[in-house]
Formats: sequence, structure tokens, C-alpha cells
Amino acid sequence: MIEKIHHVGIAVRSLDEALRFYRDVLGLPVHASATVEEQGVKAALLTIGRSEIELLEPLGPETPVGRFLERRGEGLHHLCFQTDDVARELDGLKAKGVELVDEQPRRGLAGLICFLHPRAQRGVLTELAQPVE
Amino acid sequence: MIEKIHHVGIAVRSLDEALRFYRDVLGLPVHASATVEEQGVKAALLTIGRSEIELLEPLGPETPVGRFLERRGEGLHHLCFQTDDVARELDGLKAKGVELVDEQPRRGLAGLICFLHPRAQRGVLTELAQPVE
Repeated sequence: MIEKIHHVGIAVRSLDEALRFYRDVLGLPVHASATVEEQGVKAALLTIGRSEIELLEPLGPETPVGRFLERRGEGLHHLCFQTDDVARELDGLKAKGVELVDEQPRRGLAGLICFLHPRAQRGVLTELAQPVE
Repeated sequence: MIEKIHHVGIAVRSLDEALRFYRDVLGLPVHASATVEEQGVKAALLTIGRSEIELLEPLGPETPVGRFLERRGEGLHHLCFQTDDVARELDGLKAKGVELVDEQPRRGLAGLICFLHPRAQRGVLTELAQPVE
């Protein structure tokens, strides 16, 4: 079951520049930041209600977010839905023939996650996440 | 004060096609749909937790969403933050020099709304909304 929007991912050239708007102007608190080498990003997570804004700065041009910036510029990058069971959700999506990026759940910033292919969701790169302790 | 993500707007070529994923596969309930002539869109609003997904199909190519589809294709279109006082929020943003689309709040699908210019938010078209009865 899809419970809520876990986060909205935004691709930015510079976290520092982006924080000037999302943290300093809008007043959203940063509750975590992390560098995830295997995904090629530096991320800052800001709390908004029961959801998050995830600002993503690429570690280089040859990373997924780096290529996104090259192709489309800064902006909305992906949408993450929270579920209580990402493996079961994946099985359901497979049974319905939804095109996936990840065939199995894997560890990500938001817990156990998987990505669906944007073709399935009208161009929206979609992540499912099951928070874990 | 920004309270939560009110909705995420997604530009689609066909509401019916998009509903096959968001309603039928993900199981999100549609709680409203509307045609807004002055904005040139047909919209379907789906509930997700305390937020919404707003699917937007343009009424024609010479509408804001029609031009977006032409330029960028289907995908994430805008992000809407809920506030308890959109006029006060607008005043605060003006004082901080944030570039606006709307200088005054106006009526929209989500209540009293205004749009900020995407340049201010790293390419993200941003809406503020104050729900009204």
C-alpha cells in the first residue's frame, strides 16, 4: 500500500545555492545530509510536513544526476512514495507488467527502495521506499 | 509558514492513460476532477497520505501545460507547498527578492494560490496554496 509522498527529489548544480532557497527563504529544516558514492550524489534532506525535499548535487558529470542536469537542467528529478513493504509492492507491479529499474529492493537513503522506469509513469522517475531503522 | 507538500503536479498527454498507472496500478483514489478553462487544463486529483497528485492534461497545445509537454515531454511539472497564509508568504518572498509569477494571490484548484518563478528555486516551478472552504 502506498502511504504518502516520502520525498520529492530535485536535481541541483550546487547544494549550497539550493539551500539558500529551500532552507533560508522557505525556512525548511535540514535534517540530514549525506554523500552516497555509489549513486554519485551529495544529498541534503529537508523536512516538510511528513515528507521530505531531497536536494541532489551530482559528484560528477558521468553520474545519473549529472547526466540529468546536462540533458534537462536543474529541476524536479523524481518522486518517492512510501510503502510498508517494498518487496510486496514490487511483486505486485511485476505482476501488472510495470517496467522496473530495480528488480529487487536495495538499500538507499530512504531505507529499502526500488526505482520504476519513467516510461511506466508518464515520464516520472518513481521510487518506492520502505523506511528501516 | 510552509506546512506540507500540498501536491505534486504531473503533466500528461492523456488523463485516462495516466490514471491507468496512478489510480489502477498504484491504487491511489481520485477525489476530484475538474476542467479549468482559464488555465487550459483538465485535472484529476488523487489522494496520497495528506498530499495529492495532480495530473494535468492540456486543453490544447497553446496552453502552459501544452507548451511544457512540447518542450519537455510528460513528467513532473510543479511542486505545491501548503501555507496557512499565502498573502503573508508572498510579502515575505517579495521582501527577500524572490522572483514571482503572481504578485497577488489568486483562486486556483488548491484554494488561494500563487506561483513563484522557477528561476528562484533551481528550475522548480513552485506554487504556494492556502486551502479555503
